[in-house]
Amino acid sequence: MKEIIAIIRMNKVNVTKKALADIGVCGLHAMKVMGRGKMMVDFSLLDELGVKEEIGGLLAEGLSGGARLIPKRMLTILVRDQDVAKVVDTIIQVNREGHRGDGKIFVGPVLDAVRVRTGEQGEAAI
Amino acid sequence: MKEIIAIIRMNKVNVTKKALADIGVCGLHAMKVMGRGKMMVDFSLLDELGVKEEIGGLLAEGLSGGARLIPKRMLTILVRDQDVAKVVDTIIQVNREGHRGDGKIFVGPVLDAVRVRTGEQGEAAI
Amino acid sequence: MKEIIAIIRMNKVNVTKKALADIGVCGLHAMKVMGRGKMMVDFSLLDELGVKEEIGGLLAEGLSGGARLIPKRMLTILVRDQDVAKVVDTIIQVNREGHRGDGKIFVGPVLDAVRVRTGEQGEAAI
Repeated sequence: MKEIIAIIRMNKVNVTKKALADIGVCGLHAMKVMGRGKMMVDFSLLDELGVKEEIGGLLAEGLSGGARLIPKRMLTILVRDQDVAKVVDTIIQVNREGHRGDGKIFVGPVLDAVRVRTGEQGEAAI
Repeated sequence: MKEIIAIIRMNKVNVTKKALADIGVCGLHAMKVMGRGKMMVDFSLLDELGVKEEIGGLLAEGLSGGARLIPKRMLTILVRDQDVAKVVDTIIQVNREGHRGDGKIFVGPVLDAVRVRTGEQGEAAI
Repeated sequence: MKEIIAIIRMNKVNVTKKALADIGVCGLHAMKVMGRGKMMVDFSLLDELGVKEEIGGLLAEGLSGGARLIPKRMLTILVRDQDVAKVVDTIIQVNREGHRGDGKIFVGPVLDAVRVRTGEQGEAAI
């Protein structure tokens, strides 16, 4: 069993939820987080807007002053080992827009799971 | 050390908190999550209400359309290895009502813990 | 790769964010949690206020009745193995006030990370 944690844009929760249901993964939990990636400034966007000259200053300020945190959603999905790649690929597919802030996915170990209602343990509880 | 994560009903936080304190487990964190189990439709309840005929349709819609997320609470509890079973049993005892949505419990590994005030590490920090 | 989870006071998020940016750690996520440490009563403070006599009662009530949960912030930071000590030390440095409730830090294993935009995996995705 693995825990897949995906940090995605707020407006991507529904499409991600549906895409996961389509591949048979229905159990998930979503929560509000405030996030900051390696650098939350979208250079390509700034470039388009013609503010290229100020990027250096923005970057310096963003890093040393602590860039503002952006509202994101964190999804937590418990999956069987053999479903990890499928779930990760699905999340990427519906969340990749090609801009910074598209999100990140982490995979962590889970030692056991229990369904409270029945007491089922391990993969049976997923 | 292990991390126990319990996804429970909103109205079960206080009773769970008290039951854990009664067995000497006081440190925990609670947060709001929106959750969806394997399937959030309570068949037995629908059955009682006489809507059995429509279950198939509901189910199909729920799965492919992405079932609605239900507000739940996520508890995070750091425990020593020898306390895992006791804590899991206690959470089950106060949260099992016999209906879908009673919740789930995950157990994950923790490599280290530090108490900020004293710098104590490992189990001493729990 | 490791996941560092820090439970800190609400008013310490900005200073922690800045201190982490200063050591080059920019990616983090913050969320609201309600927390209870081993015991959330600040004895030294109660002592100063001259309520020493009632501590026993408070403690007993706090433990058996389930102490109230206090609003805290949980920071989640993904780091390379060699940065764990530096990040933990930095969090302690800006959060230690010497009172109960200063916070806790947990370190957990991460098996993989993926940047959604580029598909970069492992440490390259941090």
